[in-house]
Amino acid sequence: MADLLWKTSVAGQIDGTTVIRGYPLQELIGNVSFGDTIYLVLKGNLPTAPESRMMNAMLTACIDHGIAPPSVVAARTVFSGGNSLNSAVAAGALTLGDFHGGAIEQCMKLFQELLGDHQGDVAGLAKEKVDEFRAAKKRFPGFGHKLYKRDPRTVRMLELAQEYGFGANYIQFAVAVQDTLEAAMDRPMPLNVDGAIAAILCDMGFDWRVGKGFFIIARIPGVVAHIVEEWTREKPFRRLPEGSYGYDGPGLRPVPGSK
Amino acid sequence: MADLLWKTSVAGQIDGTTVIRGYPLQELIGNVSFGDTIYLVLKGNLPTAPESRMMNAMLTACIDHGIAPPSVVAARTVFSGGNSLNSAVAAGALTLGDFHGGAIEQCMKLFQELLGDHQGDVAGLAKEKVDEFRAAKKRFPGFGHKLYKRDPRTVRMLELAQEYGFGANYIQFAVAVQDTLEAAMDRPMPLNVDGAIAAILCDMGFDWRVGKGFFIIARIPGVVAHIVEEWTREKPFRRLPEGSYGYDGPGLRPVPGSK
Amino acid sequence: MADLLWKTSVAGQIDGTTVIRGYPLQELIGNVSFGDTIYLVLKGNLPTAPESRMMNAMLTACIDHGIAPPSVVAARTVFSGGNSLNSAVAAGALTLGDFHGGAIEQCMKLFQELLGDHQGDVAGLAKEKVDEFRAAKKRFPGFGHKLYKRDPRTVRMLELAQEYGFGANYIQFAVAVQDTLEAAMDRPMPLNVDGAIAAILCDMGFDWRVGKGFFIIARIPGVVAHIVEEWTREKPFRRLPEGSYGYDGPGLRPVPGSK
Amino acid sequence: MADLLWKTSVAGQIDGTTVIRGYPLQELIGNVSFGDTIYLVLKGNLPTAPESRMMNAMLTACIDHGIAPPSVVAARTVFSGGNSLNSAVAAGALTLGDFHGGAIEQCMKLFQELLGDHQGDVAGLAKEKVDEFRAAKKRFPGFGHKLYKRDPRTVRMLELAQEYGFGANYIQFAVAVQDTLEAAMDRPMPLNVDGAIAAILCDMGFDWRVGKGFFIIARIPGVVAHIVEEWTREKPFRRLPEGSYGYDGPGLRPVPGSK
Repeated sequence: MADLLWKTSVAGQIDGTTVIRGYPLQELIGNVSFGDTIYLVLKGNLPTAPESRMMNAMLTACIDHGIAPPSVVAARTVFSGGNSLNSAVAAGALTLGDFHGGAIEQCMKLFQELLGDHQGDVAGLAKEKVDEFRAAKKRFPGFGHKLYKRDPRTVRMLELAQEYGFGANYIQFAVAVQDTLEAAMDRPMPLNVDGAIAAILCDMGFDWRVGKGFFIIARIPGVVAHIVEEWTREKPFRRLPEGSYGYDGPGLRPVPGSK
Repeated sequence: MADLLWKTSVAGQIDGTTVIRGYPLQELIGNVSFGDTIYLVLKGNLPTAPESRMMNAMLTACIDHGIAPPSVVAARTVFSGGNSLNSAVAAGALTLGDFHGGAIEQCMKLFQELLGDHQGDVAGLAKEKVDEFRAAKKRFPGFGHKLYKRDPRTVRMLELAQEYGFGANYIQFAVAVQDTLEAAMDRPMPLNVDGAIAAILCDMGFDWRVGKGFFIIARIPGVVAHIVEEWTREKPFRRLPEGSYGYDGPGLRPVPGSK
Repeated sequence: MADLLWKTSVAGQIDGTTVIRGYPLQELIGNVSFGDTIYLVLKGNLPTAPESRMMNAMLTACIDHGIAPPSVVAARTVFSGGNSLNSAVAAGALTLGDFHGGAIEQCMKLFQELLGDHQGDVAGLAKEKVDEFRAAKKRFPGFGHKLYKRDPRTVRMLELAQEYGFGANYIQFAVAVQDTLEAAMDRPMPLNVDGAIAAILCDMGFDWRVGKGFFIIARIPGVVAHIVEEWTREKPFRRLPEGSYGYDGPGLRPVPGSK
Repeated sequence: MADLLWKTSVAGQIDGTTVIRGYPLQELIGNVSFGDTIYLVLKGNLPTAPESRMMNAMLTACIDHGIAPPSVVAARTVFSGGNSLNSAVAAGALTLGDFHGGAIEQCMKLFQELLGDHQGDVAGLAKEKVDEFRAAKKRFPGFGHKLYKRDPRTVRMLELAQEYGFGANYIQFAVAVQDTLEAAMDRPMPLNVDGAIAAILCDMGFDWRVGKGFFIIARIPGVVAHIVEEWTREKPFRRLPEGSYGYDGPGLRPVPGSK
């Protein structure tokens, strides 16, 4: 085993039985929800009942927000040009970069760097870090919203976290950062839904490297639904509408030496 | 609305409320499982309790099978070359073509073409179609397995379908095709797990164009778990090992007129 | 060699020398143009001087047509979301499906099926095939243009082909199909630039399976230039403008059993 | 124009004429080589004769190195799974990350940061920067080779640069860094081909953001040739060979509460 080129602890065969993280796939089927199985492949163990409910709630929160985001536009555009559904899904995944779908990962990374194994006074740490960030003119990802004083999805997430018994360090830290930012800046800086999910995933023990993947897993079903809709409702193929684009480069000039 | 370039019935805003197929996203969060939400975006309505359990079981069945499939190899290879997680997911999706992950779609398409709105004697229809296919030397996708006389995952799926009260036309047709094929060919031609899932999705009323997307949704979490494992356990970058490849083109020859 | 998993005749090592189709890479550098090297990797041998000029002319013809095509929009959108240049190029390549960039391949395939090893009266064959297609109400790809009676790029291509001494079967066949179509339909059905390039590539002896790749090779530099322009001139990130999109799905409805 | 969402200076229409950076596409066809047209879209103007020859030489140098690199393996694997040629090209592009095909960009960025508008004693600057890097234990990208004391492709590139009259600041700086590194470390630290191309592109006046795109443009034809070879010589589909992979995760364990 040690010298194999390709090794994994995610899934494989043990004595002819297909296992996911050690659990027989056959036994998982019908006994755990898909959300639980996602938790299992990402984390290495099955969730408790509260973790299962929280995981399903967070995945549901991210599934789709309509047709405007670039992941949907890119996916529908690629399908519309005469390509396969899986190519269109790939195009959707390609758009999910730092500025679109990247916030959960960024927040988790920052929270884990700032909080780490810190024990004790979370509010004091939040104040200290907010001061540091403001002095360095750095922005806290995961806070602020263009419309809301409080992001209703965050409110829902935090309610559920409380109901399910999550209330550990990272959520406390995130809320303390929100309160400190608002006091310092004297305007709403609400913990947004990406920041809330990031804090909860941290409290669940997920490594920040899982953050982007979590969002992709949650969003792909929406992308697929959009592609199927493009397939069944629209005609090929999409290009920019006349009047929405133009050329602003050098004026007409001859090619030197052309015949 | 009619003249908008980009319209969708999947998700959007109604009077400032984000909805998925009409349901407020806020209400879905915490009240339905992620598997149910997937069903909702793909089908347009929420599943019944049996449909929910069946959907979760089928998604779980496809989540991962180990490191060997090309979707995993491509995803890990792309990440290993110094690319982002979402690019690696895209590479995984790109591999899921006709020969890898395409069987559910192909079976659903065929089943819907063959069975359509047929009412009545399913076994007779199966016999008729098997005879047609054999006469034309065409292969039935979804039947046969290199190892099993009966695919244990199929057995599990059919048990669950029966337990949950699914037993409608498509499952009966698929089993009848299996039995007819085996009688005609005098060897095991078991309905495999792709065929079983295809039949159940058909009985649930899904259009065959959803088939590939269903598989992608189910498999992406496994791909993400593999990429995170590549990130946290392996060093860059993967290339073919020495001795596994070679050049068999024209022998050495000079470039005409080279200096 | 025979039992290696990965073999290629494109490039590799011979006695420590890197070769492309047998030619030392070191000797190719500085002695042949990039267009010639493209011809070499695709065809297996170096072009003659006329083939070299024709190849360079055709590649140049396809390099870019502005910002409107979906390949450019997808590539710029992906980059704009905070992704890498190579991911954005990949998104551009993904859009080049059957309806966008697929015409050269489709024409080459059709021309090779229709003409094959046919010797002799090309005009008669063209008439016969046009009649067949019209009887079957099938469309000839590569003919017709929404603006032009004669596509100026086609005119240029055919002039160059004549100047360089290309004038073999496929070009004659393509022009004969054009003339026959126009006589039969009594309206302009000009051979378009995709059809002209397809005919010339066929006369050069390229397999039709090279057609899509030829177009991609020619178009990628334009896509790269657009991505660099997005990088250096634009701010992140692009999403659909307000007012251009909407939701037309089911009206607001409660989630059954929600709390 | 100012308020258009999509503007470009790369290509478009002027009074009904398709232009590339102001030059009529019709005039470019047949009058300039494809390498020149690539230079044009990337740089904004046509190359001089020496620039043209250098550009073609550098593009040729990067076209393909055999089947082992991950870009080729990923592209062939994706095609092999039953996907389209353009999807396979996309997979190839996706692999070209920081560790595979990223060196030209990295060198150009560093060279432009270090040299900038520096006038005068290039050798002195090289010594200063090498000392800085060594003190900070930072590695210079573009130097060192596992096999060669002098990279023969670099030698060829520098010969051509000299022959064509290139010899400006960046090449001198790169060679001075090589000599200083070797003197300081007392072992071969040859400027490799990526570093040489980077220096020449800098001397030509290209922005470092073009570096990765240059490599992708040069390499895609090789990737296309490999995909066509996979299409015409191989059977579907590629997966890891038995015995090359394994599972090293948790041992077999029951699913809690499973029936």
